[in-house]
Amino acid sequence: MKIVLIGAGNLATNLGKALQGAGHDIVQVWSRTEESAQALAAVLKCSCTTEAEEVVRSADVFVIAVKDSALSSLAASLKDGREGQLFVHTAGSMPLEILPFERRGVLYPMQTFSKNKEVDFSVIPCFVEASGKADEAMLISLSKTISDTVYVLDSENRKYLHLSAVFCCNFANHCFAMGERLLKEHGNLPFSVMLPLIEETASKLYSMSPQKAQTGPAVRWDKNVIDKHLQLLADEPGMQKIYELMSKSIHEVN
Amino acid sequence: MKIVLIGAGNLATNLGKALQGAGHDIVQVWSRTEESAQALAAVLKCSCTTEAEEVVRSADVFVIAVKDSALSSLAASLKDGREGQLFVHTAGSMPLEILPFERRGVLYPMQTFSKNKEVDFSVIPCFVEASGKADEAMLISLSKTISDTVYVLDSENRKYLHLSAVFCCNFANHCFAMGERLLKEHGNLPFSVMLPLIEETASKLYSMSPQKAQTGPAVRWDKNVIDKHLQLLADEPGMQKIYELMSKSIHEVN
Repeated sequence: MKIVLIGAGNLATNLGKALQGAGHDIVQVWSRTEESAQALAAVLKCSCTTEAEEVVRSADVFVIAVKDSALSSLAASLKDGREGQLFVHTAGSMPLEILPFERRGVLYPMQTFSKNKEVDFSVIPCFVEASGKADEAMLISLSKTISDTVYVLDSENRKYLHLSAVFCCNFANHCFAMGERLLKEHGNLPFSVMLPLIEETASKLYSMSPQKAQTGPAVRWDKNVIDKHLQLLADEPGMQKIYELMSKSIHEVN
Repeated sequence: MKIVLIGAGNLATNLGKALQGAGHDIVQVWSRTEESAQALAAVLKCSCTTEAEEVVRSADVFVIAVKDSALSSLAASLKDGREGQLFVHTAGSMPLEILPFERRGVLYPMQTFSKNKEVDFSVIPCFVEASGKADEAMLISLSKTISDTVYVLDSENRKYLHLSAVFCCNFANHCFAMGERLLKEHGNLPFSVMLPLIEETASKLYSMSPQKAQTGPAVRWDKNVIDKHLQLLADEPGMQKIYELMSKSIHEVN
């Protein structure tokens, strides 16, 4: 397929590489800044532009992978002269309707992308949605060329999927960050001592649900240990409050 | 070494197997209940008892691996007739001093143990402490026979290590459980869709600190997405409060 890539950030870069690797033709890259437009165009060996009006007029699909806050106005600026084209965004938390096009869709690859860290796209679940059945079928088959796991999901449920990802990725990672801080400040242990525990916590999920896998003082409601931990956090009111709420919440659901 | 195992739960079972696998002689198992005493004794092919007074009088080390709340009274019941013996507990959150023996120590293998899930003990970091230098050296070398990572850590810093483990394991796992609940209630997606994201979140930690690895709406302070997520959680005040606190905390440290 002939694909135009609107955006040149982490997601656009990873997605562009995966699509090209699957044999698709990335015909052009647009980015707000000359520097990132050229950087990604060099990787993908295609042309690039920073001007909305210079974006090509026709392609099989225009994929917009920019930050959420820029999505709406950028999409509007691309409307003129591209009537009847299929535009797709990649944002987990944005509805289909944010795109001001007749033919519109969503291709949300659910992963945490960082610059300089290659990801294997084939294991990333992709969630698609489109305004029409033909475009939906097209997005499903496009997604299947880069990922082994493709679901059709509407905007309403995708909001909750994205929210769930915030808990599973960002908030879990913040738990790791708080753990790291405690280690650094008391005993100056390297965070690497936690990696086997984290590895096991994650790997358990392949054989049991996280609710079933829970261990520790909160699920046992070991008030003695919980109170001692809260005392240890007396100088850290933010972490203390999080400890208290998380423990109560674990206790309630188990 | 000749080792007596006091306890027959998850930790005692895993530890007993690892010690025996490393060539040590588990001479006896004590458990409160006949059933678990016999079950573990069958695995380790050793004798067992449920009576404190029937525990052998002498061994190189007595390892007490029971739940925290039972530790103190159980240890006291073992005192008579075993003067001069080395007793060691395995509890992350308990001080050395809880043991009423002259020769006392701690061997804390930091991992989350579940019945029916084998763990590779060699990758589990072990933290040791002892009342005397000779016993400390002995516990270090004993631990090194079962684990590649052994640290000496005093009771005060071990408290924080244990607290850090609660954040990195129990609280991170609870984030997974909350994510699972959201998926189930909205779109009925299987939790397996989250596994690649969780895998990547954990695997990033081998190349960068969790604080540096953070992504998502809270670290960007994307107020628009955060407010929408808080609205989605309107029917879940517990999760809503956790979302709010975690987001603020991520924003503050980044």
